[in-house]
This record gives sequence, structure tokens and C-alpha cells, in this order.
Amino acid sequence: MLSALDLARRIEAGALTPAAVIDLCAQAIDAREAEIGAFVSLDLAGARRQAQVPGLAALPLRGLPVGVKDIFDTADFATEFGTPIYKGNRPRQDAALVALVRRAGGLVLGKTVTTELAFLHPAKTRNPHDPARSPGGSSSGSAAGVAAGMFPIAIGSQTGGSVIRPAAYCGVAGFKPSYRLLPTPGIKHFSVYLDTAGLFAASVADVAYAAAAITGRHLRVDHGEPAAPRIGLARTHVWGEASAAMQGAVESAAKAAAVAGARVSEPAWPPLLRDAFMAHPTIQDYEAYRTLAFEYDRHRDALSPILRGMLDKAAAITADDYDAARRTVKRARQALADLMADIDVLLTPSAPSAAPGPETTGPAIFNRLWTLMGTPCVNVPGLKDPAGLPLGVQIVGRFGRDHQALMGAQFLQQALADID
Amino acid sequence: MLSALDLARRIEAGALTPAAVIDLCAQAIDAREAEIGAFVSLDLAGARRQAQVPGLAALPLRGLPVGVKDIFDTADFATEFGTPIYKGNRPRQDAALVALVRRAGGLVLGKTVTTELAFLHPAKTRNPHDPARSPGGSSSGSAAGVAAGMFPIAIGSQTGGSVIRPAAYCGVAGFKPSYRLLPTPGIKHFSVYLDTAGLFAASVADVAYAAAAITGRHLRVDHGEPAAPRIGLARTHVWGEASAAMQGAVESAAKAAAVAGARVSEPAWPPLLRDAFMAHPTIQDYEAYRTLAFEYDRHRDALSPILRGMLDKAAAITADDYDAARRTVKRARQALADLMADIDVLLTPSAPSAAPGPETTGPAIFNRLWTLMGTPCVNVPGLKDPAGLPLGVQIVGRFGRDHQALMGAQFLQQALADID
Repeated sequence: MLSALDLARRIEAGALTPAAVIDLCAQAIDAREAEIGAFVSLDLAGARRQAQVPGLAALPLRGLPVGVKDIFDTADFATEFGTPIYKGNRPRQDAALVALVRRAGGLVLGKTVTTELAFLHPAKTRNPHDPARSPGGSSSGSAAGVAAGMFPIAIGSQTGGSVIRPAAYCGVAGFKPSYRLLPTPGIKHFSVYLDTAGLFAASVADVAYAAAAITGRHLRVDHGEPAAPRIGLARTHVWGEASAAMQGAVESAAKAAAVAGARVSEPAWPPLLRDAFMAHPTIQDYEAYRTLAFEYDRHRDALSPILRGMLDKAAAITADDYDAARRTVKRARQALADLMADIDVLLTPSAPSAAPGPETTGPAIFNRLWTLMGTPCVNVPGLKDPAGLPLGVQIVGRFGRDHQALMGAQFLQQALADID
Repeated sequence: MLSALDLARRIEAGALTPAAVIDLCAQAIDAREAEIGAFVSLDLAGARRQAQVPGLAALPLRGLPVGVKDIFDTADFATEFGTPIYKGNRPRQDAALVALVRRAGGLVLGKTVTTELAFLHPAKTRNPHDPARSPGGSSSGSAAGVAAGMFPIAIGSQTGGSVIRPAAYCGVAGFKPSYRLLPTPGIKHFSVYLDTAGLFAASVADVAYAAAAITGRHLRVDHGEPAAPRIGLARTHVWGEASAAMQGAVESAAKAAAVAGARVSEPAWPPLLRDAFMAHPTIQDYEAYRTLAFEYDRHRDALSPILRGMLDKAAAITADDYDAARRTVKRARQALADLMADIDVLLTPSAPSAAPGPETTGPAIFNRLWTLMGTPCVNVPGLKDPAGLPLGVQIVGRFGRDHQALMGAQFLQQALADID
């Protein structure tokens, strides 16, 4: 994998040029893209031209190449949202986040594969650790492309588990920030209440660097040693759905953190958080039936059976159901804030297991609640299952405390490296 | 003006056809569009074709024509956001709200004039009550078109005061619902935290009918008599900025409501609400600098001086400033909820005065706070200044209590009619 932070430092030091980084990406793409299928469009020549712009190396992203999930509008690339409905669609503008990447000195290398309208129907991308496995979804190409060394930074988005899950399956760092920390205008929405833009990179320090560079916020974790956090081990009510390997991974991560000095507790799990978990599909599907009204009403036959079936059923969700779900969320957010009053971060699985076969993108049961709570989540890579496939563990922070969440994740990543 | 509710009832009763309503619109457009300039594009022939679709009269909007502010994407019309940057822009899809209008049986008659990117630079539209006056902004064409009888329903949006202010200046009912009651995907965003879709119609009952038809929610106010509400007269800290005529209008509205049976009180005004008012531009401008990154970075010379100047300054707003403003808002929302614990709705000016000259779209000082609070607002038309120009008074409800807000506005509108 390409470390964004390492590349940025070498560019800053004059030891590497943005053009040379594109050459590294081109080599990986040449070697692996035919098998992995991370891209829907790619413009190496365009990136090479932009890499020559004077002053690029002085900007926060220093000319690093970025993969952009194909549900973000781009003026220079077709934007097809993973569906034939939008074949050849060419927006006039960049999504806000894409424009901020460019403003920060990032070069858009290409658009990465998304599942259809960022829902569940699997797309062409394969897992770089095993092409017979799913890369996860919906940000399939962004996660797989980072894992395969095709670009050091990628943009994705999460409505259920579309950043953290593919990051876990592909063995890369994924960061779903607090709701709306990264701007969403110009994204193809599914459920506004949930849709959250996120980032992928090789390690926690890399993804934190990218987030800091794009937002101008103090999010980096590579200055000094992270303090030992107070960690809450969150088995949650779906713990039984996690594989034995995943349960073992989370428990050994907790042990490693404790050995490294973290105070690990196991808070009682409030029933309200289970209720909120159950409320997620009500909110998501009610909103999707309205957000995708154009596609459903005018292009129903072009939708996959899984998406069409969900929307068919979603038509029956009432405004009262939706409002009740929103009230549950409001109470659950307070319950979570209370639970975390003397905990810095939670530790929980990123997914039930390692990557499944390609017929599914995997369950989002360890992600939905956090998307709904709006809290920052980080997939910490580094662990493996008995077959050698990546197992991701997840750090969840308090809403708006993104730096604290990233620092907790960095602490855990270092603790895992120490026991490796 | 065309009453949406009256037209819908006559269509339902078989006394009128959707095609005949389009003829009424066409007559008004023929008579007044050259002077008023409400449209950027218009497709009467298309609407007449759609009016022939069988079953239309059985749908909630019964084939009524709708004007759509040109910051909402439409697949059948160019979408130019009021700026030459997007000349000829033709999205592939309808914005969610436009698709919901169509799903409910509304016919999109055309796109209405917006100020540049929904900010402050005045556009071509003139006030139907006096062409030497502004219609207000940024939903200029939607408000003016309803006022001139060109369509019975229009869509707009508000980030500062872009629904309530033009409704007041044009003498029509305007409804800015609770934040996100109407979906925003496919809108050209300015500040996601503030951007709120809204509606215009001739009267409060008309706009409530339209909102109910589009959302499927219980929002209508035309079934039975509204109960007398508990009204809080909210002079707010900017009361001194209101003209004598506006102050008199609000005070006589309070008296009329009291005569009709409302309990009118005057709550003490919490300093936190003044602080939140001051926080509005920090949030709006910080977000706009990021949301409009593409336009600012790539098309700066095509922006108006007023928008470019704001963005130039917004670059200096820090994340700390923004976060502090967000914290102020959170506290202010609680203060407002406390203040309204035994008040159903607030009564306050919709704008400082009647419509100003066309060199400005008027100040949003009586609107910003409510946009920021996310509370439902209704412009109640019916009063006039000494020159005979419309003076709008505003009803503000509690967050999520949109029906209660509309019922309060309906009560007030009837009370004003009784003293007329």
C-alpha cells in the first residue's frame, strides 16, 4: 500500500515529486486493476498534467492522487452512481468534497466503483486479498484501490456501513467522521439523515492526515505519542453475530490496548441503543423512497431486484413510523452520550467476520448504529483471521470528537503492531 | 391569485380539468410575465400534454401546475441556479422534491427566477404589486408568480430569509417547514445546515394543502375551525429595525388574534437567541466557502461582487469559529424550546417593512434566527402599509410541530380577515 503521510513527507522534503507518485499508482494499476476492478474511470494522463502545476507540493495534500467514489459529482469524469440509469452522466460541477480535495492540492485520479446507488447490489470490484471475496460495499473501489496500492487516499460514503465495512474487508484504514464533518453537497443521496462522507488510506495516521489536509482541522495523529485512552469494549446486542475469529480479534485488541496502558471497561449496553439499531432501516428506507423518487418512478425496471424490493416495501412506511424512529434516535443519542461520559472511545467489530464471497457486500450490522448516532468511526486494520484475511476492529468516538477518535484508533493500531 | 385548494376541490368535483387550470395560468402569464419576469423557463405545451394523463385528478395535487425555483434540478428543464456559470446546465434527474411533486400529481410548469446561487444579488423579477419594487429573494420568481396568478403553488428555499421574505413582499403565503420536512437532495446547496425547502401559495390554507399533498402528512388546515392558539408576541432584539408600519401591523395582528380568542403573551427575549442570530452568518458563510468551492475556485470572475466579496471574507472563518457558532445554536435551541413551553406559536414580523426598491432583495433579519433554529415559519398575508403594499406577519412554531404552526397561521389569517 501507499502511505499518504509518507509520500507527503517525501514530497515536502523534495525527495519525491507528485508526478513520481502517479508513476507508483500507475504501476499498481497496471499490475492489478484487471483483476481487482477498482475503477469505473481513470485519467492517468490528466493527473500527470495536473501534477506539473507549480506550487502543488506546498499545498496540504501535496499533489497526492485521490480515488473518488462514483456517487460524488465530478466535472472532469462521468458520474454514473453505479447504475445504467446514469450512463454517461456528466455533471457540470464537482461535489463540494471533490472541490475541497482539489483546493487542498489533491489530484483526482479517477472514479471508483460504487454499488448501485450506494445500496447492496454487488459491483464488479474484487477483494485484493482474495479475488474470490467481496471488497465490501458500497465504497468497493475506494477500499480495494487503496488496499491494492493504486492510490494513497480515497473518498467514500456510509449510510449503513459503506466505509467501515469495506475498509475492514480490504485491510485498510477507514474513517467515517462525525456527521457532516466532510461536506456532502454533490453526493448522490440515499438518506440525508444518514449519508456521511468518509475517507480511506493505508493506516490510521494516513487517513487522519488526509482528513486534516482536506478540512483544515486539527485531526492528525502523527505528532507525538497518543495518550492511553479510556476504552469501552462494546459487544453490543449483535455480538453473537460476530464470528469466533472476529470476537477473538476484538478481545485481543482490548488486551493489547490494556497492555499498552489503556483503561478498558465493558459498559452495560442500554436497550435504547438496540432500539435505535432497529430504527435505522425505518429512517433509511423511508428517506430513500423519497430521495430516489425520480429513479423509482421513472426507471423502476432499471433498478436491481434488491433495491427495487426495498423501495417497494418502503412505500408502506408511514410518516408516523418515521417520526417515531427519529424520536428513538434522539433518546438513544443521549443514552450514548451518558454511556461515554467517562469513556473516550468504544472498541467493537467493524464487521461480523472477514470478507464474504462476492455474491454479497456483507452485513452492516456493526455499522448502522454508529452511522445513525453520527459518531466518528475508524476501522483499524492489522489483524487477520486464520485464513490470513483482514479482520477490522472499530474505534467509535463521541460526536464531534473526531480527533479523539482518531487518536484512540492510532493508539490501538500501535498496540496491535507491538503484539504482532 | 389562484387558490390551490379551491382549484383542487373543483377538479375533485369534476367541475374543472387540470388542462383548464393551465389555461388560467397561461392567461396570467400572457398578461403579466413580460413585466414581472417570474420565469427562467416555461413549458406550457409540456404541462398541457401531462394534464391529459389519465388518473391525474385522483392524485393529491390533482394536476395543479407548480413553479419550481431554479436551484432545484429538473430533468425536463435547464437548471442554471441564477448564474451564467451554469448556462444550459441540464441535469439527468429531478431533485427529490420535484419528483415528489410529480408523484403527487403536480405538473411542473417551469423554472422560476432565483437570485445568483440563492444569495443576495437581485435578479430580473419585479414585484407584482409595484414593478418598481423588489419581489424579495432568493425565491423571487416563485413568490412573484404566485402573487401574479401565474401558478397556484411554487417551490422555493430559505437559507437566510428566502421563502418568508419574498412571500411577505409579494403578499402570498409562504411556508418554511421544519428543517428537512421537505427533502433537499438535488437542490443547489449554499449551507447544508441552513438550506430548507419551502412552498408558496395564495393563502395559508393553500400552502398547507400543498405541503400535505406533497409529503402525505397531516398538515391541512381547512377541515374545521382552528383552535385559538397561545401566541407569544416576539419583538426580538431587532424589533427597532422594523418600520413603524410593520410594528403597527404586528401589533394589530396580535390584537386581532386576541379579539378572536387567542391568549397573547409577550415572553422575555433570551440573550442566547440574540447570540444565535449573530452566529448565523458564521455558519452560513463558513459552509458556503466550502459548498461553493467549485464555483469560487474555478469561476470566481463569473460571481457577482456581493457573493465573491462574502466568499473572500469567509475564507478567514476558522473551524473553531464555526464550531463555537454551532455550540451557540445548540444552546439557543434549548432556550427557544424552554421559552415556548407554554406557547404554541410566536408572532413576529416577516420582514422589516414592505418591499424595498429593486436594487436589493431586502434584509433577512427577521428570518435568519428561525432558519437557524429549524422551526416552521409561515408568512401570513393580508395586511398592507399606508401605500397599499403587502406587509407580511410571521408565525413561528416549535420544531417538528408544523401542523400546529400552520393552524396558528390559519387562525391569524382568519382573525385578520375578520377585522378587514
